[in-house]
Amino acid sequence: MELTEAQRAELNEARAIRAETRRPTVPALEALLFEPIPVLDHGFIRVVDYMGDDGAVVQAARVSYGRGTRAANEDRGLIRYLMRHRHSTPFEMCEIKYHVKLPIFVARQWIRHRTANVNEYSARYSVMDREFYIPAPEHLAAQSRVNRQGRGAVLEGPEAEAVLRLLREDASRNYDHYAWMLNEDEAGNPQDETRSGLARELARMNLTLNTYTQWYWKTDLHNLLHFLSLRADAHAQYEIRAYAEAMLRTVEAWVPLCFEAFRDYRMGAVTLSAQMLGLVRRMLAGEAVTQEASGLSRREWRELMEVLGRG
Amino acid sequence: MELTEAQRAELNEARAIRAETRRPTVPALEALLFEPIPVLDHGFIRVVDYMGDDGAVVQAARVSYGRGTRAANEDRGLIRYLMRHRHSTPFEMCEIKYHVKLPIFVARQWIRHRTANVNEYSARYSVMDREFYIPAPEHLAAQSRVNRQGRGAVLEGPEAEAVLRLLREDASRNYDHYAWMLNEDEAGNPQDETRSGLARELARMNLTLNTYTQWYWKTDLHNLLHFLSLRADAHAQYEIRAYAEAMLRTVEAWVPLCFEAFRDYRMGAVTLSAQMLGLVRRMLAGEAVTQEASGLSRREWRELMEVLGRG
Amino acid sequence: MELTEAQRAELNEARAIRAETRRPTVPALEALLFEPIPVLDHGFIRVVDYMGDDGAVVQAARVSYGRGTRAANEDRGLIRYLMRHRHSTPFEMCEIKYHVKLPIFVARQWIRHRTANVNEYSARYSVMDREFYIPAPEHLAAQSRVNRQGRGAVLEGPEAEAVLRLLREDASRNYDHYAWMLNEDEAGNPQDETRSGLARELARMNLTLNTYTQWYWKTDLHNLLHFLSLRADAHAQYEIRAYAEAMLRTVEAWVPLCFEAFRDYRMGAVTLSAQMLGLVRRMLAGEAVTQEASGLSRREWRELMEVLGRG
Amino acid sequence: MELTEAQRAELNEARAIRAETRRPTVPALEALLFEPIPVLDHGFIRVVDYMGDDGAVVQAARVSYGRGTRAANEDRGLIRYLMRHRHSTPFEMCEIKYHVKLPIFVARQWIRHRTANVNEYSARYSVMDREFYIPAPEHLAAQSRVNRQGRGAVLEGPEAEAVLRLLREDASRNYDHYAWMLNEDEAGNPQDETRSGLARELARMNLTLNTYTQWYWKTDLHNLLHFLSLRADAHAQYEIRAYAEAMLRTVEAWVPLCFEAFRDYRMGAVTLSAQMLGLVRRMLAGEAVTQEASGLSRREWRELMEVLGRG
Repeated sequence: MELTEAQRAELNEARAIRAETRRPTVPALEALLFEPIPVLDHGFIRVVDYMGDDGAVVQAARVSYGRGTRAANEDRGLIRYLMRHRHSTPFEMCEIKYHVKLPIFVARQWIRHRTANVNEYSARYSVMDREFYIPAPEHLAAQSRVNRQGRGAVLEGPEAEAVLRLLREDASRNYDHYAWMLNEDEAGNPQDETRSGLARELARMNLTLNTYTQWYWKTDLHNLLHFLSLRADAHAQYEIRAYAEAMLRTVEAWVPLCFEAFRDYRMGAVTLSAQMLGLVRRMLAGEAVTQEASGLSRREWRELMEVLGRG
Repeated sequence: MELTEAQRAELNEARAIRAETRRPTVPALEALLFEPIPVLDHGFIRVVDYMGDDGAVVQAARVSYGRGTRAANEDRGLIRYLMRHRHSTPFEMCEIKYHVKLPIFVARQWIRHRTANVNEYSARYSVMDREFYIPAPEHLAAQSRVNRQGRGAVLEGPEAEAVLRLLREDASRNYDHYAWMLNEDEAGNPQDETRSGLARELARMNLTLNTYTQWYWKTDLHNLLHFLSLRADAHAQYEIRAYAEAMLRTVEAWVPLCFEAFRDYRMGAVTLSAQMLGLVRRMLAGEAVTQEASGLSRREWRELMEVLGRG
Repeated sequence: MELTEAQRAELNEARAIRAETRRPTVPALEALLFEPIPVLDHGFIRVVDYMGDDGAVVQAARVSYGRGTRAANEDRGLIRYLMRHRHSTPFEMCEIKYHVKLPIFVARQWIRHRTANVNEYSARYSVMDREFYIPAPEHLAAQSRVNRQGRGAVLEGPEAEAVLRLLREDASRNYDHYAWMLNEDEAGNPQDETRSGLARELARMNLTLNTYTQWYWKTDLHNLLHFLSLRADAHAQYEIRAYAEAMLRTVEAWVPLCFEAFRDYRMGAVTLSAQMLGLVRRMLAGEAVTQEASGLSRREWRELMEVLGRG
Repeated sequence: MELTEAQRAELNEARAIRAETRRPTVPALEALLFEPIPVLDHGFIRVVDYMGDDGAVVQAARVSYGRGTRAANEDRGLIRYLMRHRHSTPFEMCEIKYHVKLPIFVARQWIRHRTANVNEYSARYSVMDREFYIPAPEHLAAQSRVNRQGRGAVLEGPEAEAVLRLLREDASRNYDHYAWMLNEDEAGNPQDETRSGLARELARMNLTLNTYTQWYWKTDLHNLLHFLSLRADAHAQYEIRAYAEAMLRTVEAWVPLCFEAFRDYRMGAVTLSAQMLGLVRRMLAGEAVTQEASGLSRREWRELMEVLGRG
């Protein structure tokens, strides 16, 4: 992640401003405000604004006139109760806004979460930056043989080299051709006066899906946690998980009690089907249960054994 | 609107806290923060929190690294352009949270706007306050004869008196019976030890629709403006319009440039159908146009004449 | 639930029409179409239209050109996999529309689910029917002593009688006064020529919260199942649960494979927190675990013991 | 748009099935059902399912027990009234589902409309088809000089040839390298046994943004019309407009009364700001108004003159 000098100056200026407010304020998040957290080779997330804190969740649950907070212990208990019983509306009372720089193929997964506000950099209106995601060698994985939607072992040797070279060359060449078709210099004037230059909204189609884009993305805490529970999960694609993990750190700084409850009741939790629960009860009663007699499919049985630490 | 002493103390405590923040801060809105603005006879709205300002709209439209603002004049022009051309996503980057006290029949209109976060005081869990909306005499209107969904002249004399007496008596009696059925004193203990007391979730059904409830309501600026364009409109029911008008004042304090653009391009704007536009063009060309020859229905013709100031 | 003759005639006419279609069609749901299923004393739900079937879920998951279905066994396995792993978007491809008649206090709980389309009967525009919900004696429950948001034992004897009489009298009287204030006969003309009549939008505020209203309510299968998982749950208020249970029967007729998966993986499922899972593993390993040593709060411990059938 | 034989067979099978239904059925739309309508060089839209018709809008607006329709004339009047006054909820009672094949850069614009259900073909799970969008020569436009977000004259001569060659070569080469990196034959077995093959979720990043993808997209009539009002507009990018125009034809077949009202009150309508309306009134009163004296910016003045046919 390299920022231009102009970008760095903009950031520093924004960070330097201080104001007095009556709003709930979280020093641990203020310390992170505006500062890009690097993700992947050229991406980042940075918190641009936020509304509310742990107390705002409590306040909404109690519909109080003031902050609504009582003894710290009671607040923690209430937040854990709300999370455990999936009372989601109090968590919607906190809001956060990120500026994110990310490869287009990651943006396409991300945007499937519809309950957020998004403003993306427009390639109809502006020229894209010359930046592409190239996986680090340790993330260059083979197709999984057991899971059609997963990764296997890391590629090595000449195959890995060939893949990295192709990714790099194709992205570069396509960007160069994009720039040639645009026929614009930095001031927006023609580079070659004899050519008209292709419309930006058309030229962009030549870019590869690992080109970086950026957007402002704003959502409430409930929907953010739902997003993170899916995208920080071990089954998520590594590239979007890298963003989710960076965002988890900002959530921990922002709303530590909600974060703790989320970790215990959502990230670390498991759901047992009616059938699975029946088996667990029988096992606790001392019965020996086999897959054949369980009524579960082989796949579900394997999932259950993993959950119970008998995988 | 009378607050209890405990509520007033909570408010004062919340207002007294000051913190330093790097977030965009709007002094004119900070001055209103937490302070209830009275609406109707016992209701209020108060701003509890906010995120963003006029600059945040500009920042999102430009996907900038810093605040994104340039010359004040350019920012105003951009905001007006976005509003005029209904580019709604930059306005979604600002968020506001209100605490509202309102009669239940108003709450039922309000909740039809689904793009907001809501936490309402729970009558399953808690006991409702003894407060009902009784219209001021000048708002006690007859049914309109021309518009099935509107008000006519103000009721007067014995009919007005009878209506007000019925509204007051029925609400009071029903609340008294609600309280009797609950059989709880202020501490939640039985008033009459020989009775069990009806479940709160059942007893509430005896209350009238003018009973006050309250909620936390949070939405983004785009959806707030859409709500206000419908509910501050002359065709909205007076009781919800009173809330919308109080909220308009908070929007003006919060995002003055967006408010100005909203007033010019939304509140004060009119939409002409393809047929209406054709007629206006013919009239500008000096042609005399009549309803009969216009192709418009009588109702549409009347609407057009009003719009053109010839009604 | 009594329909007027005019309503019954409308229903019969709608039911009599048959047309040929290329769309996926579900005979078991066609048999229920338009027919009101009674709920509570005067309410009902009835399916008015639907889109899609079990096959539509499979088709969307496979993004196929045709129906996308294969061996029945494979389709069932895929649907169960999608439900188990919370892949929600294929379930959004089915849609259903209900006409519902329900007490206002139930409507107010219901409407909190925002991801649906709603058209409610307008009390600004029309006169409400003279129908109120009065609980059957076996549902007249006392306030729970252990759960602030629940019911205890059934009320009996003179208290029960008094409560039922108050509910009935107050609803009737308030409706009579509502009608008097409106001053309209069935044709909409004044009953008493010397009075103007109060505007409908104002008069309605005198009605009690057990007055019946009605609406068209349309949602997709994913959001419907989410609604049902909350509202058919034992913790939901009995009155809304009665509606949820009637709707479950329509879901079973409509998409039997989705229904079965929903029952196994959602309705009958339990979620164990990270801490609870750790305890279950220790118990399976033969360790004796006590609440004191568990790290769980007393409340959580009780919840876990219930789940494990050791309550 | 070329379908494989297997796809064509799937379509024919789906089209051949007929069933009897009690649901509202629209013969003009049934005739189009499942049949792909070609868009761009390899894309299409096809209607896969629908719910409701013009009568369903009327039914919801009247909250009727039957179909709710009366004299055809009254229904048309009601639908036009609802459209003119932006009563949107009755239009939400109709639903439609499309299968769409479209270039990725078009999909990225499209997905910004969040109020729809989407299931996209997964490039994590499956191999993408070898199909790219290459603009027809008459759509190969230069960047507009006056509008940063628009197209100018059509490119011609050697520049046009060079651009088309680059687009074609780069997309082809990148796809070939994608296929090489995957190292899969049609049965999913390695083409080259000495290589592992890159994970599909990674290899896809080498594709260009004009690669075709496909999805199931489902939305209600209100949100569809909003989408079409933005995307069938002259300011929309040609490539997405081509899809919007094909969809407009399906809307006309489906709900002819809603379509007519939409055309009159939305597509062909104009909105005048408070200031613009004031000027029109002055012009109708015979006053000569100039831009300088108008209070409008030059840009707004130009917009107004165009609207009034004096541009």
